[in-house]
Amino acid sequence: MTLRDLIETKRDGGHISAAEWRNFTRDVAAGTLPDYQIAALLMAIYFRGLDGDETVALMEGMLHSGRTLDLRHLATGRVDKHSTGGVGDKVSLVLAPLVASCGVVVPMMSGRGLGHTGGTLDKLESIPGFNTRLTLARATAQIEQLGCALIGQTGEIAPADKTLYALRDATATVEVIPLIAASIMSKKLAESLTGLVIDVKTGAGAFLSNQVDSITLAQTMIGLGARHHCPVVALLTNMDSPLGIACGNANEVEEAIDALKGGGPPDLRELTLRLGTEMLLLAHAAPDAVAARAQLEQAIDSGAALEKFRDIIDAQGGESRVCDEPELLLPQPAMRVPYLATKDGIVQRIDPRAIGKGITAMGGGRSGMTDILDPSVGLRITAKPGDAVQRGDMLATIEARDALCAAAGRAALDAALVIGDESVAPVVLVSHRITAAGVEQLA
Amino acid sequence: MTLRDLIETKRDGGHISAAEWRNFTRDVAAGTLPDYQIAALLMAIYFRGLDGDETVALMEGMLHSGRTLDLRHLATGRVDKHSTGGVGDKVSLVLAPLVASCGVVVPMMSGRGLGHTGGTLDKLESIPGFNTRLTLARATAQIEQLGCALIGQTGEIAPADKTLYALRDATATVEVIPLIAASIMSKKLAESLTGLVIDVKTGAGAFLSNQVDSITLAQTMIGLGARHHCPVVALLTNMDSPLGIACGNANEVEEAIDALKGGGPPDLRELTLRLGTEMLLLAHAAPDAVAARAQLEQAIDSGAALEKFRDIIDAQGGESRVCDEPELLLPQPAMRVPYLATKDGIVQRIDPRAIGKGITAMGGGRSGMTDILDPSVGLRITAKPGDAVQRGDMLATIEARDALCAAAGRAALDAALVIGDESVAPVVLVSHRITAAGVEQLA
Repeated sequence: MTLRDLIETKRDGGHISAAEWRNFTRDVAAGTLPDYQIAALLMAIYFRGLDGDETVALMEGMLHSGRTLDLRHLATGRVDKHSTGGVGDKVSLVLAPLVASCGVVVPMMSGRGLGHTGGTLDKLESIPGFNTRLTLARATAQIEQLGCALIGQTGEIAPADKTLYALRDATATVEVIPLIAASIMSKKLAESLTGLVIDVKTGAGAFLSNQVDSITLAQTMIGLGARHHCPVVALLTNMDSPLGIACGNANEVEEAIDALKGGGPPDLRELTLRLGTEMLLLAHAAPDAVAARAQLEQAIDSGAALEKFRDIIDAQGGESRVCDEPELLLPQPAMRVPYLATKDGIVQRIDPRAIGKGITAMGGGRSGMTDILDPSVGLRITAKPGDAVQRGDMLATIEARDALCAAAGRAALDAALVIGDESVAPVVLVSHRITAAGVEQLA
Repeated sequence: MTLRDLIETKRDGGHISAAEWRNFTRDVAAGTLPDYQIAALLMAIYFRGLDGDETVALMEGMLHSGRTLDLRHLATGRVDKHSTGGVGDKVSLVLAPLVASCGVVVPMMSGRGLGHTGGTLDKLESIPGFNTRLTLARATAQIEQLGCALIGQTGEIAPADKTLYALRDATATVEVIPLIAASIMSKKLAESLTGLVIDVKTGAGAFLSNQVDSITLAQTMIGLGARHHCPVVALLTNMDSPLGIACGNANEVEEAIDALKGGGPPDLRELTLRLGTEMLLLAHAAPDAVAARAQLEQAIDSGAALEKFRDIIDAQGGESRVCDEPELLLPQPAMRVPYLATKDGIVQRIDPRAIGKGITAMGGGRSGMTDILDPSVGLRITAKPGDAVQRGDMLATIEARDALCAAAGRAALDAALVIGDESVAPVVLVSHRITAAGVEQLA
């Protein structure tokens, strides 16, 4: 079949064979297909979807389109965490060194921010000197030595996914569950994992705003993992408001360092421990959830987790003194402007999408992949939904490079922060736990 | 709005404003938009459609993206015919000179064959020397002198349509009624017509296989014409079997010349007269249909129509002696192989799509725009649906360049020609006549 035939088949709701998907991904990686035909196929998939076999075939095609980070010679469990993306989500920065400090191999490959969500790589790069662009050989050596590397998707890993993702982003075809699942799993399975934890964000600021879609996505990824002997556990976690206090880049690194020291916002700490527990269990590094959590808390209290982060920063060329004096070593905003409540009431909600878009407007996010970020700007939102506030109370701090940037931050807070009279139900941080065995509702 | 926003809007079933369509077509013509984004938009339109205002805006944007064949200084009526494409459809070759010989200006801009349908330009180019690539200036001069030119869409006419059409063809997004209507009308209105007749083919071999879609297409074009003071009349005509006998390129020119001389297959003559009648009426060149038909028959009988064709061929650099000795001047096949009935019975149907694809397989059609045609090959199918035949009767002649080519022609006839026991209802050549006043069922 020609690519035009594949488009027509999918357009009409038909099934594309595994062999055709294999050829397609091989040719995508080779760069021999016209991108306009790929784009048309993606839009047809947006409307028609992919069935289970097609999703597997596409994922495997993307996985095999490039090289892998081969860690099978390591005897320890190899577990990574993936988040579907939120606002203020700096969990990876805490979680990777924390879990690695418990003896689990964490080969963490992250992405950049796009749209209203931030990206781990962008945050890490606000640490002076930190290099996320390791070769596979260097990443392997570092993982052998430290049990962890924090890197970006190299051109060698799943190149077909890289091309398809860029086209999806440019053609409004990102939000397709089988495409999301296949894209994530093609990269994660290239890390030769023995287990994967997925943080599926749900709510206003998430990629998928409803629980049904989130559960479907989780189950799709669990199915893909199962076929490659990689058990997957997914937690559905709240993204109706930003996670923690800091939203931006440098300020999120500072908050992550606080958390590694045992401080930081409670929701960030709790989510990190919940995800970390699953990772330790998947790695068979703890007998049960209680023991796993105790082990993680001990690694924070002993300083082992922070020490692991310091070693990783050193190994990747960064200024590891950032762990001791973050405010001296991280880019700082030119101005900090307090944001005050204009009336009495209860914080009804803090829309994460408006916050994320505001960060982008301030220069701290990306609307296109070639945008250059200012890591110093951002928002620190100390108010939480349900807080009773009085006119004049400080709700947030705007961290800006100039008055225009501050105005963009203020506008975002005006749009995001709603104060009203209704009482607000407490946030449920983790609502579901999904494994191959089924869906467990936690709250 | 960025193009990505337009894609998202259309993907979600929204409305795109006239101003956005104007910018879009301008940028398409300028070549500044990424074709993968255009392709994604086209596929979103495939699933979501365009509303009436969007169709108008897109059509006007394409029309104004280039130059026009400005004939407004001519006092006579200027009427063209457009066919949505069929198999064996050589009507234009007869109709244009015939109607022009009755004093109507016929600025006929045609296309090439693609997929299973043939194209007027390809057929014309089987006449040695015939040049279809006239500049607008030369076409204007010829029309002023002869009342007719038979040309292709130059790069100057509706360039945005040209780009969009090529992308639609490559991305399986051709069959979208508003896109078809806007594409046709942007080119036809660029001929500064005072009237347009549309031959909407319906049935197995047509672009649109059902009557409802055909009527919708006709009404969409009538609506677009009305906004530009160009009355449009559409006839819904049968394409359940090929028109006439000859299917190919050179053999269709020969059949057209026969028809200009008063001969040729009856269905070809009848359809030509029906369409010509509408053209004369739109040009106010005849008081009523009966008078119009008589005028056309007179132009054939007197030789005026053939003389007009001869003049056009001369003016466009072709060998006009083809009118006298077509078999000497047109490319001839290396071999002619009779195709015989293998059993007794009644011809149930002759699938035009299978015939069209067979012509392409023989080398006489195009699967891609860069394919080079062999004008000499084709099929002459003398059998018609409803004919009672006996085993051994000659049903068709395969005109091939070699044995392989003949085998392809035979396979096409095997697939297309079904002989059975059922009686067959007579073919209704023209089923509906559609004008701004409404839909008239003729049979």
